[in-house]
Amino acid sequence: MPMKPTLAACIIPFFIGSACLVQAQDEKPVAIDTRYQTEIQTLAKRPAVQSAFKTFVELEPQTRQDLISLTETASPPFKEQVRARKYADMMKAAGADSVWLDEVSNVLALRRGKGRRKTVVLEAHLDTVFPEGTDVKVKQKGDTLYAPGIGDDTRGLTAVLAVLKGLEKHSIETDADVLFVGAVGEEGLGDLRGVKNLFKPNGPKIDSYIAVDGDGIDGIVHRGLGSHRYRITFKGPGGHSYGAFGIVNPHGALGKAIYYFTQEADKFTREGVKTTYSVSVIGGGTSVNAVPYESWMEVDMRSESPDKLNGIDKLLQAAVQRALTEENQMKRAGPDLTVDVKQVGDRPSGRIEPTVPLVQRAMAVARFMGVTPQLSVGSTNANTPIAKGIPTVTIGSGGTGGGAHSLNEWWLNDKGYLGMQRILLVLLAEAGVK
Amino acid sequence: MPMKPTLAACIIPFFIGSACLVQAQDEKPVAIDTRYQTEIQTLAKRPAVQSAFKTFVELEPQTRQDLISLTETASPPFKEQVRARKYADMMKAAGADSVWLDEVSNVLALRRGKGRRKTVVLEAHLDTVFPEGTDVKVKQKGDTLYAPGIGDDTRGLTAVLAVLKGLEKHSIETDADVLFVGAVGEEGLGDLRGVKNLFKPNGPKIDSYIAVDGDGIDGIVHRGLGSHRYRITFKGPGGHSYGAFGIVNPHGALGKAIYYFTQEADKFTREGVKTTYSVSVIGGGTSVNAVPYESWMEVDMRSESPDKLNGIDKLLQAAVQRALTEENQMKRAGPDLTVDVKQVGDRPSGRIEPTVPLVQRAMAVARFMGVTPQLSVGSTNANTPIAKGIPTVTIGSGGTGGGAHSLNEWWLNDKGYLGMQRILLVLLAEAGVK
Repeated sequence: MPMKPTLAACIIPFFIGSACLVQAQDEKPVAIDTRYQTEIQTLAKRPAVQSAFKTFVELEPQTRQDLISLTETASPPFKEQVRARKYADMMKAAGADSVWLDEVSNVLALRRGKGRRKTVVLEAHLDTVFPEGTDVKVKQKGDTLYAPGIGDDTRGLTAVLAVLKGLEKHSIETDADVLFVGAVGEEGLGDLRGVKNLFKPNGPKIDSYIAVDGDGIDGIVHRGLGSHRYRITFKGPGGHSYGAFGIVNPHGALGKAIYYFTQEADKFTREGVKTTYSVSVIGGGTSVNAVPYESWMEVDMRSESPDKLNGIDKLLQAAVQRALTEENQMKRAGPDLTVDVKQVGDRPSGRIEPTVPLVQRAMAVARFMGVTPQLSVGSTNANTPIAKGIPTVTIGSGGTGGGAHSLNEWWLNDKGYLGMQRILLVLLAEAGVK
Repeated sequence: MPMKPTLAACIIPFFIGSACLVQAQDEKPVAIDTRYQTEIQTLAKRPAVQSAFKTFVELEPQTRQDLISLTETASPPFKEQVRARKYADMMKAAGADSVWLDEVSNVLALRRGKGRRKTVVLEAHLDTVFPEGTDVKVKQKGDTLYAPGIGDDTRGLTAVLAVLKGLEKHSIETDADVLFVGAVGEEGLGDLRGVKNLFKPNGPKIDSYIAVDGDGIDGIVHRGLGSHRYRITFKGPGGHSYGAFGIVNPHGALGKAIYYFTQEADKFTREGVKTTYSVSVIGGGTSVNAVPYESWMEVDMRSESPDKLNGIDKLLQAAVQRALTEENQMKRAGPDLTVDVKQVGDRPSGRIEPTVPLVQRAMAVARFMGVTPQLSVGSTNANTPIAKGIPTVTIGSGGTGGGAHSLNEWWLNDKGYLGMQRILLVLLAEAGVK
């Protein structure tokens, strides 16, 4: 996450490996087809929908309690099971037809539609960026709630839950099946493993994907900023800096690899869709008087364009192989250098055109609610379905928040019910109402 | 150190930053002038010298006790004061004319000569490589004593002390003054600061320098392997790997610096006196999704030739500046990169020709004692006077040892008294006997 079109939260080094929304790129404003504006207005006038809107307001004390309870159920990377079971129980109590955990501990709650020809996913993510042992006790100052993970994305989980409750209470029947999902592994090294598992071969057929992540009611992520991340390690025998001189030096190879990669990558990224690269972390070596036995770097590459992402990835691979070859040619004694290239991150990229009905609907809902829709790019669970060309948006859950990925994370219930109203409208428009 | 012409002890990464003796290079065997052989034979026949020889044997229980007591007085890098005071007390008790600690805590003990036209230094070093808190309790297995630092160079300290005792007991008067020294800072990052302080401007006038370091009675270091060591740090603002893309990347500069340096250094070291370089330790960066704010490397360069050492140093400096300039030219936004070049090691290099009387004398003594003198290169306190062209040797203190710089360091009193006899002969030959 976060959803607000600001970069502030993302540039603080604390937010290690996090998924992150980034600034909207220069995109031409996109018109909203009147067809979708009419559709949303009509939907919103339905008595059951109006009743659900009121229910979101009435539910607020319960939603607040759910938020605190889920936030205080720690959900560190790769350890979301406890929260997952709790969330599954909540989904069951809210009336889903069937609720289960899949093999990676995603919570899946199916609410059957009438037509059952389509499935729309409504998802928030279970995991936080915070390691085990982080104090997740919720503190209140004035009206603001403070706790690690409270906004990103625990608020999203409670908003999705409230939407299910609203549908159930007023017996709103959709045409499509709605699959409510609490997903694991959205953040950092989780590397979208929850959503990737949803889209595994033989997984459920999914026709549309609505991710709920971040606050506010205006942001709409319809582009996935893809990233490839590698940890590359050169290895040699190591030895005394004088006595063993002439053996391969892994740092020599790393220096060459960085040099060749950045020379080519610089040219490659001067044109076309914004594509970035960063040699981010390096290490290796034991002592100033020893040729190291290993040298490693972590590299991050990003682009909205799959072609550009693959292109810059190839430059990295070529640079690494060239460096390996040349360092080995330079050696005067001893065994060859080897290299281990390990991919540690693979977030696919892509875009759903703003003319696609789901995006149009999300825009029309924002307009209906009196705000200006903000189309943007992000690196969220949405990346996976976006890359598959499945109609997808990530939208916020209302209220105002900040400090995502920091220990001072906060969320303020500033008309938070508007978030649920918005989600409900987008969902119903996409899933169809009988 | 150690003194034995073996590399084994030096290639183990544990021996961080250590001074170290290295394998003898291909040097033609050097003849020993009969003049020095005669000189040593004559010296050794003197009754007082013969009596001193016996004294070294008689003193062995005391020398053993001194060795244990000094070894168990920890002397970590930069924290040699406690051992220094203890050693000063021992020197005073042994009969030196005056004993004092200089401003870096070197122990200096002057024994006046008759002529007083020259000063010969006899030195061992006080410091060990072991950090504060290391268990320095001496353990005995069979006849072997085990403890960190017991050989390197605590045995040297006790040998020098015993030589003073022998001189005093038998009233052997030298022509030159003899300055007995317990030096601080020989190892690693101590960077020879003790011996460097001896040779500061306005320091004592020193005409010959005999360092006692290592075991055995055959090794003679007459060449100083110089080294320059740097810690080089590139610094930039740092930022998000996507959002802040285009700012300077310190790792980019480091990669370039390594590339340019090693390309040139490889050519430079293919000819002439053996000269080595090693990019040994690197680091920097906080997270895979952040452009780092700093990138650093530690570089080691060595040569017996001051010209080659300075030459390769210039290649490093040029590569660093070129990398800085080019990384700054590559940037698309933000402030410039800066670089901090910090020299963390400066051991001068040089050689004392084997024809110089002190080296001839050391060789003649070895021959006299029935062993083959082993001329070699080292990186010890001797580097400093050698670089100044002052007649200098590093010789061992007898016995057998091993595991220098490891927690399993050991020393065995295998006719250790021969070490003192050897030191006495070299010293008396160089200082002259009345």
